[in-house]
Amino acid sequence: MTVTYSRRVADARLGTFSHLLLRWRGSIYKLLYKELIIFIIFYSGLSVMYRVLLNEEQRRLFEKLAINCDKYASLIPLSFVLGFYVALVVSRWWGQFESVPWPDRLGALVGGHVRGADESGRLIRRTLMRYANLSGVLIYRSVSTAVYKRFPTMEHVVQAGLMTAEELRQLEELPSPHNKFWVPCTWFVNLAMRARTEGRINNDVALSALLSELNTLRSQCTKLFSYDWISLPLVYTQVVTVAVYSFFLACLIGRQFLDPSQDYPGHDLDFYVPVFTLLQFFFYVGWLKVAEQLINPFGEDDDDFETNWLVDRNLQVSLLVVDEMYDGVPQVERDKYWD
Amino acid sequence: MTVTYSRRVADARLGTFSHLLLRWRGSIYKLLYKELIIFIIFYSGLSVMYRVLLNEEQRRLFEKLAINCDKYASLIPLSFVLGFYVALVVSRWWGQFESVPWPDRLGALVGGHVRGADESGRLIRRTLMRYANLSGVLIYRSVSTAVYKRFPTMEHVVQAGLMTAEELRQLEELPSPHNKFWVPCTWFVNLAMRARTEGRINNDVALSALLSELNTLRSQCTKLFSYDWISLPLVYTQVVTVAVYSFFLACLIGRQFLDPSQDYPGHDLDFYVPVFTLLQFFFYVGWLKVAEQLINPFGEDDDDFETNWLVDRNLQVSLLVVDEMYDGVPQVERDKYWD
Amino acid sequence: MTVTYSRRVADARLGTFSHLLLRWRGSIYKLLYKELIIFIIFYSGLSVMYRVLLNEEQRRLFEKLAINCDKYASLIPLSFVLGFYVALVVSRWWGQFESVPWPDRLGALVGGHVRGADESGRLIRRTLMRYANLSGVLIYRSVSTAVYKRFPTMEHVVQAGLMTAEELRQLEELPSPHNKFWVPCTWFVNLAMRARTEGRINNDVALSALLSELNTLRSQCTKLFSYDWISLPLVYTQVVTVAVYSFFLACLIGRQFLDPSQDYPGHDLDFYVPVFTLLQFFFYVGWLKVAEQLINPFGEDDDDFETNWLVDRNLQVSLLVVDEMYDGVPQVERDKYWD
Amino acid sequence: MTVTYSRRVADARLGTFSHLLLRWRGSIYKLLYKELIIFIIFYSGLSVMYRVLLNEEQRRLFEKLAINCDKYASLIPLSFVLGFYVALVVSRWWGQFESVPWPDRLGALVGGHVRGADESGRLIRRTLMRYANLSGVLIYRSVSTAVYKRFPTMEHVVQAGLMTAEELRQLEELPSPHNKFWVPCTWFVNLAMRARTEGRINNDVALSALLSELNTLRSQCTKLFSYDWISLPLVYTQVVTVAVYSFFLACLIGRQFLDPSQDYPGHDLDFYVPVFTLLQFFFYVGWLKVAEQLINPFGEDDDDFETNWLVDRNLQVSLLVVDEMYDGVPQVERDKYWD
Amino acid sequence: MTVTYSRRVADARLGTFSHLLLRWRGSIYKLLYKELIIFIIFYSGLSVMYRVLLNEEQRRLFEKLAINCDKYASLIPLSFVLGFYVALVVSRWWGQFESVPWPDRLGALVGGHVRGADESGRLIRRTLMRYANLSGVLIYRSVSTAVYKRFPTMEHVVQAGLMTAEELRQLEELPSPHNKFWVPCTWFVNLAMRARTEGRINNDVALSALLSELNTLRSQCTKLFSYDWISLPLVYTQVVTVAVYSFFLACLIGRQFLDPSQDYPGHDLDFYVPVFTLLQFFFYVGWLKVAEQLINPFGEDDDDFETNWLVDRNLQVSLLVVDEMYDGVPQVERDKYWD
Repeated sequence: MTVTYSRRVADARLGTFSHLLLRWRGSIYKLLYKELIIFIIFYSGLSVMYRVLLNEEQRRLFEKLAINCDKYASLIPLSFVLGFYVALVVSRWWGQFESVPWPDRLGALVGGHVRGADESGRLIRRTLMRYANLSGVLIYRSVSTAVYKRFPTMEHVVQAGLMTAEELRQLEELPSPHNKFWVPCTWFVNLAMRARTEGRINNDVALSALLSELNTLRSQCTKLFSYDWISLPLVYTQVVTVAVYSFFLACLIGRQFLDPSQDYPGHDLDFYVPVFTLLQFFFYVGWLKVAEQLINPFGEDDDDFETNWLVDRNLQVSLLVVDEMYDGVPQVERDKYWD
Repeated sequence: MTVTYSRRVADARLGTFSHLLLRWRGSIYKLLYKELIIFIIFYSGLSVMYRVLLNEEQRRLFEKLAINCDKYASLIPLSFVLGFYVALVVSRWWGQFESVPWPDRLGALVGGHVRGADESGRLIRRTLMRYANLSGVLIYRSVSTAVYKRFPTMEHVVQAGLMTAEELRQLEELPSPHNKFWVPCTWFVNLAMRARTEGRINNDVALSALLSELNTLRSQCTKLFSYDWISLPLVYTQVVTVAVYSFFLACLIGRQFLDPSQDYPGHDLDFYVPVFTLLQFFFYVGWLKVAEQLINPFGEDDDDFETNWLVDRNLQVSLLVVDEMYDGVPQVERDKYWD
Repeated sequence: MTVTYSRRVADARLGTFSHLLLRWRGSIYKLLYKELIIFIIFYSGLSVMYRVLLNEEQRRLFEKLAINCDKYASLIPLSFVLGFYVALVVSRWWGQFESVPWPDRLGALVGGHVRGADESGRLIRRTLMRYANLSGVLIYRSVSTAVYKRFPTMEHVVQAGLMTAEELRQLEELPSPHNKFWVPCTWFVNLAMRARTEGRINNDVALSALLSELNTLRSQCTKLFSYDWISLPLVYTQVVTVAVYSFFLACLIGRQFLDPSQDYPGHDLDFYVPVFTLLQFFFYVGWLKVAEQLINPFGEDDDDFETNWLVDRNLQVSLLVVDEMYDGVPQVERDKYWD
Repeated sequence: MTVTYSRRVADARLGTFSHLLLRWRGSIYKLLYKELIIFIIFYSGLSVMYRVLLNEEQRRLFEKLAINCDKYASLIPLSFVLGFYVALVVSRWWGQFESVPWPDRLGALVGGHVRGADESGRLIRRTLMRYANLSGVLIYRSVSTAVYKRFPTMEHVVQAGLMTAEELRQLEELPSPHNKFWVPCTWFVNLAMRARTEGRINNDVALSALLSELNTLRSQCTKLFSYDWISLPLVYTQVVTVAVYSFFLACLIGRQFLDPSQDYPGHDLDFYVPVFTLLQFFFYVGWLKVAEQLINPFGEDDDDFETNWLVDRNLQVSLLVVDEMYDGVPQVERDKYWD
Repeated sequence: MTVTYSRRVADARLGTFSHLLLRWRGSIYKLLYKELIIFIIFYSGLSVMYRVLLNEEQRRLFEKLAINCDKYASLIPLSFVLGFYVALVVSRWWGQFESVPWPDRLGALVGGHVRGADESGRLIRRTLMRYANLSGVLIYRSVSTAVYKRFPTMEHVVQAGLMTAEELRQLEELPSPHNKFWVPCTWFVNLAMRARTEGRINNDVALSALLSELNTLRSQCTKLFSYDWISLPLVYTQVVTVAVYSFFLACLIGRQFLDPSQDYPGHDLDFYVPVFTLLQFFFYVGWLKVAEQLINPFGEDDDDFETNWLVDRNLQVSLLVVDEMYDGVPQVERDKYWD
C-alpha cells in the first residue's frame, strides 16, 4: 500500500513538510518505535546501573569508559556511509519501479492491429493480452511476497482467470528447471504469427511492432527478475548495518549523563532523558529505515508497490482496450474551435 | 508560474548571482519569511525570559542547557542529509518535467500522414490531436492542483472544447474504477485504424509510426501518473524534516547570548541579534524549501510548471499544425547561396 | 567562444594542470578579479579602521566580534552546498549541449532519399535542410543572447539567407502567441510529403525515417526551449549565493589580524596580507563562478557554446551534403588490402 | 554464486537488516577475517613491545609517536574517497550486469519469423540460437574466470554442444589476431540471409528486426569486452588502497593504549582490546571489500554473477523457445471474464 | 596503452588490491614521482633553512608562520572538491569511451544486405566499410594525439590503405573550412543509394537500417568531436588545481617539524622525515592525477584508450566480415541436444 502524499505538498507554504510529521501510515514512528523502545530500555538499564548499582570506584571506571565511547561514536562517519548507501538503494528502487511492466502500450497495438469483431478475433485479442498479463504475474509471484501470498499455487492463478487449466498443464509439462515467466510470451508470439497467417494482422510492419512491444514487456520482466536475483552485495548492507549499530552501542554508554560533580567537560548537567541522543537515534536509524523499506519494494511495507492492485488494473484495462472498446470511436464531430 | 531567470545569468560578470538576490517572486524570502518570523518570536521570547524572568540560579541552569544544545546542534549532519535529499528531489523534479507530454511530434506525423483537405480529413486530423491533448489533460487533472482548479468537473473540460459531450458520455459509461486517461488514446488508435482502412493513411509504415508516437505520449502520461502515485518514501521526507526542525529547536536555546560575565567560552559578547544564526536559518531552511517546492512541481508555487499554459499552448499548436498549416509550404525558391 | 584545452592535457605529465594556471581567457582570474578587488578594498578598509581609527575599548570589542565571525564562518558548509549545486549545474550544462541540434543526420537522409539532380530536386533538398536549420536558429534566437545580437530582428534572419521574405511573411501571419520555432518543421513535413507524392522520395520507409529524424531535431529544440524556460529553481541559486556571500562577509571581519599582544589563540602573528583568506576566496568564489558560467551556456562568456559558429557551420555543411555532394562517390577502386 | 537476500528484507520490520549480520556466505566476516587476524597480530605485537620490551625512555618516545599517528589517522578523509570510489565501482558493476546478453528477445523473433516445422527449419532455428549463445560464451571465456575454468580450451566448448567441430575449425582458420566473439554473429547474419532467400523468413521487416536484435546482443558482448579491457584507472584504485592501508598503519601505532599514568588526554583507560578500532577496521576495510568484490563481477566471489548458470540457462531456454515450443499455442478458449 | 588489471582482481581475497600496489605501468608512482621529488626538495630546503640558517628570532617567527600554515591547510576542503571533480571527469571519460565508434554493427548489415559475391559486390562492400572506418580515423586525427602522430598528414592515411588518392583529392577539394570527418559518411550514403538502385540492396527496409546504423556511427564521431571541443570549463580545473597546490604550499611550511623544546602543541617530536605528509601528498596529488589522466583519454598516457589499435582492429574486422566471410556459414548440422 503505497503512501501517497504528493497532494499534501503541492505548494510550498508555511511548514509544508511539518504536516507530514503527523502521519502514522508509512511513517518513521511506525517503523522505528520498536527499535526506539529497545534502545530506551537498554539506556535506562545502564543508567540505573551507573547511578544505583555501581560503587564509587566502578563509577569512575564507567565514567572513563563513557567518555571513550562518546569519542569513538563521533569518529564513525555515519552520515557519509548512509548518504551514499541510501542514494544507491533509492536509485535501485526507482529502477525497479521503472521495470514494472504496464501492458497499456501493447494493448493499444493489439487492439489496433488484430482485426475482426467476430468471436475468433475477440478470442485472439483477449488471449494475447492475457498472455502478456500472465507473464507479469508469473514474475511477480517470484519477486513479490504480496503477490505470492495471493497466488500461493499456480491453481490460484488459474482460478483468478489469468490462465486456463490447459495452459497450466502445458506450462508445467515444459521440461525446464528455470523460471518460466517467458513461456506465455512465447505463446503470444506463436499466436500472433498465426493471426498474421490468417490475415487478422494484415501487414508485416504491424506484426513487427507487436513483437517488439512484447519484447519490451519481456525485458522488463527479466529486469525485475534480475533485481531480485542480484541483490545489492550483502557486504555493503552489512557494513552500513554494523556502522549504525555500533554507533548506537557506543552511544548507549557514551551518552550517559555522568555525575556533574566530577566536572567532566560537557557533563555539567544531568537531564536524565537524553533528548538529543534520542533525536539522533530517530534521525540516523530513520535514514537506515529508508533503506530497509526500499531495498525490496515488492514486500508488504506501507510504502511498497501495490503489485496486487497492478495485477487487477492491468488485466481489466487490457481486456477493456482490446475487447469492449475494439474499433469504438465516439461520433467524430466538429470541435469548438472549428473555423 | 515558472520563474525564469536564464537571461539574467547569461554572462558571468561581476556578481552575476547577486542580482538574483533582489527578486521577490519565487524567492527564498517569499518562501521563508513566515518561518523566519516564527523563529524570531520564539528566540526573542526565550531571550527575554532568560534576561528578565529567570532568577540567578535558573539562569545558571539555562546557560548550561544552552551550551549543551549548541553542542548538539553541531552534531546534526544537516548539510549531508539535505545535500543527498535535495539531489534526489531535484532529479525527480526534472524527471517529471521530461515526462510532460508535448504533442508536437505526434502533430507532425498526423499532419503529414493523414491525407485529405476535405472536411472529413480535417475532422479526423483535428479529432486525433484533440484526443492526444485530452489524454494529457485527464492526467493533469489527477496530478496538478492548478489544472484541477481550472477543470473541477469533466463538464469544464467539455466546455473548454477539449472533448465533446458524446465523448464524455462514453468515457463515463466505461466500466472501470481506474484512472481513464488512456481512453482517448484508445479512441485515437481506433480512429487511426479507420483512417488507414479508408486510405487516408496510405501505408502501414506511417500507421505504425503514428501508433508508436502515440504510445510515447501515453507512456509519458503513465510516468506522470506514477510520479504522483509513488511519492518519495514518506520516511525519507520525515527524516529530513526532523533533522532540520530539531536543529533549529536546539539553536533556539543553544544560540542564545549568554551573560558575558559568566565567561563561557565563545560567549564573551552579547549582540542581542543572532545575525549568524539567522543566516544559518536562511541557508538551511532555504535548502529545505528547495525540496518543498520541487517535490511536487504540479502545484501552484511560483516555480511550479505552468500546466495550464501547456494545456492551451498544446491544443492551439496541435490544431494549427494539422489543420491551418495542412499541406502548406511557402513558395519554394532558390536560396541566397544557390550556386 | 569555447575555451578548448583538451590538447594541453592529453598526457598526464609533471604538473599537467599547472600549465593551465597561466591562461587568461576563460580563466578564474578573468572571472574573479573584480570581486577580488572589492573584497580587498573592504578588507583593507576594516583593517585600517581597526588599526588606526578605533580607540582601545572599541578595538577590544572589534576583536571579540572578529573571533565570533571567524567561528561562524567555519560553521557554513560551503563545500557541501557548492559541491551539490555545481554538480547539478554541470549536469544541466551538458544536458543542454546534448540538446544542441546538429542537422548532419538529417542531411544524410535528405541527401540520400530525395532523388533527382535537376533543379527541382536540388530546390527541394536545399529547402528541406534550410527549414531544419531555420528551426534551430529560431530557437537560438530565443535562448542565446549571442545569436539574438546577431539577428536582432527576423529581417536579419532573412538577410542571412536562412529564410525567404515569403517564408517570413507566412511565419508572421500565423495566428499563435507562442514561440514558433516549430513552424519550419511543419513546412519540412509538408514539403517532404509533396516530394513523396511526386515520387522524389520513392518509398514509405524512407519517408518515415526522414520524419522521425526531423522529429528528433524538433525534440532537441523543444529541450533547449525547456531548459531556458525551466531554470534551476531560483531558491536554490539564492541559497548558494547567500551562503557564499555571508561566508565572506564573516571573513571580512573574522579574518582580520588581531593585535598579537592581546594573546588571542591563533592570532599571534600579524601578516597584514591575509594570504590564506585570499586563496580561500579564490577557491570558493571560483567554484561559484563555475556555476555562474555554466548555468546559462548560451551567453557570451568565454566558455559558452559558440552558437553563431554552429549556425554557420550547420547551414554550410547541410547544403554541401544535399547539393554539391549529391550522388557523388569517388571512383570505387580496389583498396590496398584487396586479396 | 550470487548471494540473494531480497526475500529476507521484503518488509521493514524490527531490525530487518540485523538478521543479515548472521550470514556467512558473501559476508563481511568471510571476506575480512584474514585481514583482521593480520591486523590483530601486528597490533598485539606492538602492544607487547610497548608494554614489555621497551625501556622507560623508549616508551616515552613511543607514546609521542602514537599520539602523532593518531592525529594523522584522523586527517585521512577515508569516508570521502571510499564513498566516491565505491559509488563508481557500483555503477560499473551494475553497468556490467546490464550488458550481460540474454538471448530471450532474439529467441522470440527467431521462433516467430523463421518458419517451417520440418527438419531444415528446425536446424536453421536451432543453429541461429546456438550462434547467439556461442558469441556470449566466447566473450565470457575472455572476461570470466569461472567460465574460463569450465571451458579451458575451445575443445570444451565443442564438447558442451555449443559449437560443432567444423565451426571450431572455421573459427580458428580465420586470419585475425583479435578476439573473435563476433564471428558467430556473422554466421548468424549469413544464415539468416539464406533463410530469407529460401523464403523461410518471409518478409524484409522481419529480417531487419532479427538483425537489429542480433546487433543488440553483439553490442552487449562488445560492452562486456570493453569493461574488461578498460579497467577503472589503476591510479584511482591505488589511491584508495594507499589511503585505507596507511590509515590502518597509522592506527596500529596510534590506537595503542598508552600508560594511563602518563596522563595523556584521552588515554586514561587501558582496555587492552581496542574494540572501537576493530569496529572501524570492520567498517572501513569492509567498505573497501565492497569495491574489491564488485570491481570484477565475473570472478568466483560469493557475490559474482553466476555466468556458468547463465550459459546453461540461456542455451536451454533458447532451444526450447525455437524448437520444442515452435508454433505451439495452448487451445485458445474463452477466459473467465468473457462477457 | 590501456592498463588492464581486471583479471588480477577477479576474486576478493586477502589483500586483493594490495597486489596492485606493486605495479609500475600506469601506477601512481610513475605519475607522481617527479612531483614528489620537487616537493621533497622544497621541504628539505625549508627544513635546512629553519634548522641551520635562521637565527633565534627568525626561528620563532617561522614557527608561528608554520602553525598558521598548518591551520590553514586544514581549512581547505580538498577531499570535497576532488571528490566532485573527479566524479565528473570520470563520467566524461566513460562517456567518451562509449562514443568510440565500433563499425561491427554496421559491418553485419553491410555484409548481410549488400548482395553479390562478384568483384563489383565485393568492391562496394569493402568500400562502404572503408568509408565508415575512414570517418573514425578522421575524427581520431583531430582528437587523439597518438593517432595524429601516426598519421601526421593525410598522405599517411592514404598510405595506410584507409583511403585512395582520388578520395583524398575529392576530400580536399571540398570547399568547407570545418572538420570534414562526415564526408566519407556522405559517400557511404551515396554509394549505398547506388547499390539500392542497382538492386544489390534489394529492399528499402534494409537500406533504411543501413543508413540509420551509419548515422549512429556518425553521431558517435560528432560526440567525440564535441567532447574535444567543449572541455570541462577551465575555471573548474583551475579551482581544483589552485586548491591542491595551495594546500601543499601551506604544508611545505606548516608541516615542518618545529623545535620540540618550544613546546608547541603537537610538535613534541622531530622525525625529520614527514612520513604522514608524504602519504597525504601521495593520496591527494594521486587523486588529482586520476583527473589529469582521464580528462583527455586520447593522449598517450599509460591508461589512455589505444586508439591506434582500434583503427587497425576495426579495419581488419570490417573487411573480414564483409568480404572473406561474406555468405559463409559452416555446414549446418544437428547439434548435440537434437531430440
